[in-house]
Amino acid sequence: MTSQPETTARLLVTCPDRPGIVSAVTTFLYHHGVNITELDQHSSDPSGGKFFLRLEFQTPDLDVSGEALKRAFGEVVGQRFEMDWRINFAADKPRMAILVSKHDHALMELLWRYARGELRVEIPLVISNHPDLRAAVEGFGVPFKHIAFSAETQQAAEAEMLAALDGQCDFVVLARYMRILSGEFVKYYTSRIVNIHHSFLPAFPGGDPYQQAYTHGVKLIGATAHYVTAELDQGPIIEQDTARVSHRHSVDDLKRLGRDMERQVLARAVRWHVEDRIIVYGNKTVVFS
Amino acid sequence: MTSQPETTARLLVTCPDRPGIVSAVTTFLYHHGVNITELDQHSSDPSGGKFFLRLEFQTPDLDVSGEALKRAFGEVVGQRFEMDWRINFAADKPRMAILVSKHDHALMELLWRYARGELRVEIPLVISNHPDLRAAVEGFGVPFKHIAFSAETQQAAEAEMLAALDGQCDFVVLARYMRILSGEFVKYYTSRIVNIHHSFLPAFPGGDPYQQAYTHGVKLIGATAHYVTAELDQGPIIEQDTARVSHRHSVDDLKRLGRDMERQVLARAVRWHVEDRIIVYGNKTVVFS
Amino acid sequence: MTSQPETTARLLVTCPDRPGIVSAVTTFLYHHGVNITELDQHSSDPSGGKFFLRLEFQTPDLDVSGEALKRAFGEVVGQRFEMDWRINFAADKPRMAILVSKHDHALMELLWRYARGELRVEIPLVISNHPDLRAAVEGFGVPFKHIAFSAETQQAAEAEMLAALDGQCDFVVLARYMRILSGEFVKYYTSRIVNIHHSFLPAFPGGDPYQQAYTHGVKLIGATAHYVTAELDQGPIIEQDTARVSHRHSVDDLKRLGRDMERQVLARAVRWHVEDRIIVYGNKTVVFS
Amino acid sequence: MTSQPETTARLLVTCPDRPGIVSAVTTFLYHHGVNITELDQHSSDPSGGKFFLRLEFQTPDLDVSGEALKRAFGEVVGQRFEMDWRINFAADKPRMAILVSKHDHALMELLWRYARGELRVEIPLVISNHPDLRAAVEGFGVPFKHIAFSAETQQAAEAEMLAALDGQCDFVVLARYMRILSGEFVKYYTSRIVNIHHSFLPAFPGGDPYQQAYTHGVKLIGATAHYVTAELDQGPIIEQDTARVSHRHSVDDLKRLGRDMERQVLARAVRWHVEDRIIVYGNKTVVFS
Repeated sequence: MTSQPETTARLLVTCPDRPGIVSAVTTFLYHHGVNITELDQHSSDPSGGKFFLRLEFQTPDLDVSGEALKRAFGEVVGQRFEMDWRINFAADKPRMAILVSKHDHALMELLWRYARGELRVEIPLVISNHPDLRAAVEGFGVPFKHIAFSAETQQAAEAEMLAALDGQCDFVVLARYMRILSGEFVKYYTSRIVNIHHSFLPAFPGGDPYQQAYTHGVKLIGATAHYVTAELDQGPIIEQDTARVSHRHSVDDLKRLGRDMERQVLARAVRWHVEDRIIVYGNKTVVFS
Repeated sequence: MTSQPETTARLLVTCPDRPGIVSAVTTFLYHHGVNITELDQHSSDPSGGKFFLRLEFQTPDLDVSGEALKRAFGEVVGQRFEMDWRINFAADKPRMAILVSKHDHALMELLWRYARGELRVEIPLVISNHPDLRAAVEGFGVPFKHIAFSAETQQAAEAEMLAALDGQCDFVVLARYMRILSGEFVKYYTSRIVNIHHSFLPAFPGGDPYQQAYTHGVKLIGATAHYVTAELDQGPIIEQDTARVSHRHSVDDLKRLGRDMERQVLARAVRWHVEDRIIVYGNKTVVFS
Repeated sequence: MTSQPETTARLLVTCPDRPGIVSAVTTFLYHHGVNITELDQHSSDPSGGKFFLRLEFQTPDLDVSGEALKRAFGEVVGQRFEMDWRINFAADKPRMAILVSKHDHALMELLWRYARGELRVEIPLVISNHPDLRAAVEGFGVPFKHIAFSAETQQAAEAEMLAALDGQCDFVVLARYMRILSGEFVKYYTSRIVNIHHSFLPAFPGGDPYQQAYTHGVKLIGATAHYVTAELDQGPIIEQDTARVSHRHSVDDLKRLGRDMERQVLARAVRWHVEDRIIVYGNKTVVFS
Repeated sequence: MTSQPETTARLLVTCPDRPGIVSAVTTFLYHHGVNITELDQHSSDPSGGKFFLRLEFQTPDLDVSGEALKRAFGEVVGQRFEMDWRINFAADKPRMAILVSKHDHALMELLWRYARGELRVEIPLVISNHPDLRAAVEGFGVPFKHIAFSAETQQAAEAEMLAALDGQCDFVVLARYMRILSGEFVKYYTSRIVNIHHSFLPAFPGGDPYQQAYTHGVKLIGATAHYVTAELDQGPIIEQDTARVSHRHSVDDLKRLGRDMERQVLARAVRWHVEDRIIVYGNKTVVFS
C-alpha cells in the first residue's frame, strides 16, 4: 500500500456495467506510460448494474501532462463508457476544514495525525460554535474561528461559515459538531461532509445516543462515520465499529469507551476520503479500503 | 471456571441495595459448610438502587440437605433483605425445548453442543412448524414434533405446543422459529424463552433483517439473543455480536456470514441461561459471564 | 460476490511485475467474450517485484472451449509475461480429503457446511487414525477409512494413506489430525494440505498449545490455518483469529473457546482455497478474500 | 463502575484459598460502616490454591480513620488468613513517571488522557533518552528530563534515572522506551513498570517486531502491555489486542496500524494499574477489569 505520494495518482470511475471497461482503461493508461499499483473494481450486478473502479497508478514515466491525461481519458474512454470519473494527483493535498463543538477527542485525533504526517491534508480552518478549543487548535498552527450558532442565528451563522469556507476547503469534517446543519448548507458540500455519529446507525439516531444505548441495555455500543445529507443521521455510511459493554457500565462509561471508538472510526473514514477510496452511489458507499 | 457439576450450586439474588448483604449471605453459607468458588455482584446504584448477586458454591461438605439449605436461606437471609432469590443445583440439568422452522444452523449448533456434553441440558422436545428437520433432530436421539402454524391456526397451534411442553421443559429456545408467538403464549414462559434475532437490535427488528441491512449499506451486520416478551424483538437483550461486511457482499453473503454469528451468539446466551448467569431486571439483563 | 457457479471461472497469475499485464490479460479475455466480475491484484514491489492477479469471470458467451481458452491464454499472454498461471472452472468441484484424529469439531464443521451446500467440494474420503468417528462421517454419506498411525508404523501408514488418496483428491485438510506427517508425504501435496493449528502462530507451535497459552498467561488465544510444509507448524499462514480470555479461564475453558475459533478459521481457509483465492509465494500467502 | 473518587477505597488480597474469607472480609468492613460497591474474586484452585480478592468500597460513613482501618484489618482479618493485602484510597492519586524514546504516540495518548482527567494520576516526570519530545511534554505542564543512554553509559544513565525517580513516583510506564533496562534497575520497581511491546507476545519478542511479523506473513498483528522483569519481554502480561492485516500491508502499514493498537492497549493497562485492578502472581496477572 506504500507508494511515492509525489508521483501517485488515482482514478475513480462509476458507469453502467458492460464488458471491456477494465481492458479499455488499463490499455489507455499503459499506452501513456503509467504503472498501475492498485486496482479495485466492483459491480452491483454484472447484467445491467453499476460498475465501480478505483485505480492507483504511478506517473514518473507519464508521457503527457496531468491535464492532458485527464482530457484524453475523457475523450477516449470516459465518453465511450458513459463514465462519471475523476483523476486526482496525490501531490495536490486536499484541504480539510473541521467543525467542532466542545468535545475535543475527535478533533484532537485528526490534528494529531495531521501533525505527524499520517493524514495527507491541509487544514485551512477549524470552526467551532464555542470558543473553548481555540488554544488547542492554534497550538497545531491551525487557524481557529468561533462562529456562534443557535436556533435563532442559524441562518446568519451558516452564511458566515459558508463565507469562511468558500474556496478554502475541499471537504468538511464534523468532529462532534453538535448543531444540525440545514439542507441549504449541506447541498454546498454534497458527499463532502464527513460526520461521526456516536452510535451504530441506524440504531439510536439523533440526540444522546449513549443514553439511548444504556436505556436499551445493548451489549455493544457503536460509532458510525457517514456523509451528511439533508436527513439527520441518514446519509451514506462510510465506516462503523462496535465495542463490548455490560451491565457494569454507566452512561459515563459508555461515553468514555465510545470516545476511543469514535476517534478510530472517524480517522479511518477521513483517511479513505483523502485517499479517494470512497464512491457514493444512492445512499450507500463503495469503500475500496 | 471449572467445577464439579455434581456438587455445584448457584444462588441468584435481586434485592434493594443496602450495606451488609454480602456479609450476611457469605456468612450464612460459610456456617453451612459451603465453599464459594465464584461471586459476582452488581449494584444499579449504591444509594437506593437494586443489588444483584450470583454465587457459585461447592456442596460436598454441606451440613444439611439442599431443600433445608433453601428453607433456611429464605428464613435467615432472604426475608431480612427482601430478596428475590433462587438456588439451583447443577446436578439437576435444566430441560430445554427448541422451536425451529426450516433454517437448521442454530438448531444444529445447539444439538451438536448438547451431543458432545458442552451444554448441560436435557432436550425433551424439538417442535417445528415444518416437517423437514425430523431426521436431523431424531439422529441426535431427540424427539421431534411437527405442529403446523399459520395465521388461521395460530390459536390451536399454540394450544398444541403448550400442551406438548407443559411439565416437560424449564425453558424454550427459538432457534430461528419464524412465527410470532402471541402474548398469551409468551406469558407462560416469562424470561424463559430465548430467541435469536438476525440483526443488531434495536436496528432492523421484524422481517428480513439482512435485506434491511443490505439496503441501508451498513458496514457491520449483527445478531442478538434476547428473552421474548409480548412486543416483537423488544425483549431484554442477553448477547450481541457484529461482523464486518462491505459493498462486495450480497444479501446472500450477509445471510451466510450472519449464520455463523447467530450460532455463536445463541450458543453463548443459552449457556449463560443454563448456568444461571442471567438476571432480568426491567427490560435489561445483568449477565455474570 | 454472488455468481452462477456453472459459468464461473477463475484465473490466478504470478509473474514478474512490469507495466501492461492487466491490460494484456483483460483485453485477451474481452476478445473472447468473457465478462470479468472480480479482479484483485497485488504487487510485492512495483519495481522488480512479483505481481499477483486473481480474476473471476463469467463464461456464458465464451467463444471457444475452456481448453482452447487455456491454450490460447498460455500462448498469447502467459509466455509473454513469464507467468505462473492457472484457470479453474467452478463447475469442476475440487475434491477434498479430510484427515482427522479424535476431536470432531473441525471435521463436523466442514461436513456440515458441505451438507448444506455452503462448501462447493466433493469429499471422496475421510481418513482417521482412530475408528471413533466412522458413524459420524458415514452419516453424511461420506466414505470413512481407519488407518492406524504410530511412530513404528508411520511409513506403512503414510503409504496406505497415499494409496487411498492417489487420484482421488485435489487437496487435503487436516481437521485436527494429531500425527506429524513426514516430509515425504507432504511433498506429494505441496501447497495443497491445509492444517488448523490451535494457537496464534508463531506462538506456541507443537504440542498442547492451550496448555502453553495458559502457562504464559496470555490474554488472547488464537487459531491459525496454514499450508503444511516439512517443518512443523511453519508453513504459509492462510488465516488467523484470536479470542479474549482471562485469569478466570482454565485450560479446559481455553479448549472450549478455542474450538469455536478453530472451526471458523478453518472454514474460512478452506473456502478460500476452494474458491482459488490463495496464492503461495515464498513462505507467505496472498489471499484475495 | 462510577463512584465518588474522594470516598472510594480499594482492597486487594492474595492468600491461600480456604472457606470463610469473603465472609470475614465483608463482615469486618460492614461493621466499620463501609459500603461495598464492587467485589471480584478468583481462586486458582478451590482446594489448596491461591485466592484473589478485589473490593471497591465507599467510606463516607467509615467509623475510624483510614490508617486505623488498615491497622485493624491487618490484625483482625489479614493475619488470620495469611493475607498479602493492601488498601488504597482513591483520593491519593498515584504518581506515574513515563520513560520514552522518539516515538511519541504512546506518550501522547497518556498525556492526553491525563489532561482531560480520564487518567487519575499525577505525572511528576517524563524521562527520555532523546531531547526531541521536550516541547510536546512541557506543553502539558509536565516536567521533562533528557538522560542520554548508550551501551557504554548505561550504568550512569540508570543511576541518574533512579535518582530522578526516587521518592517521586509510584510506578513507571515505558511508552516505547527503546533501551533495555538492567535487572538492577528493574528490581527497584518490581511489578511497577508497565511496558508496551509492539507484538502479540510471546511471538516476536525483542527488536523490530513489525518486521518480524511481516516476514512471517501473519494475518493479525498484536500489541502487549506487561510488567517488566529482568528477562526481556517475558514479564507478566496485563493486556493484549490484535488487528487484522493482509498481504497488502507493508512494514510501514503495520507500524501505522500497530500504533493505534499500542495506544489503546497501553491506556487500558495503565488505567487498570491505577485503579488497583491487577494482582501479579507468579508470571501471570489477575486483572479484575
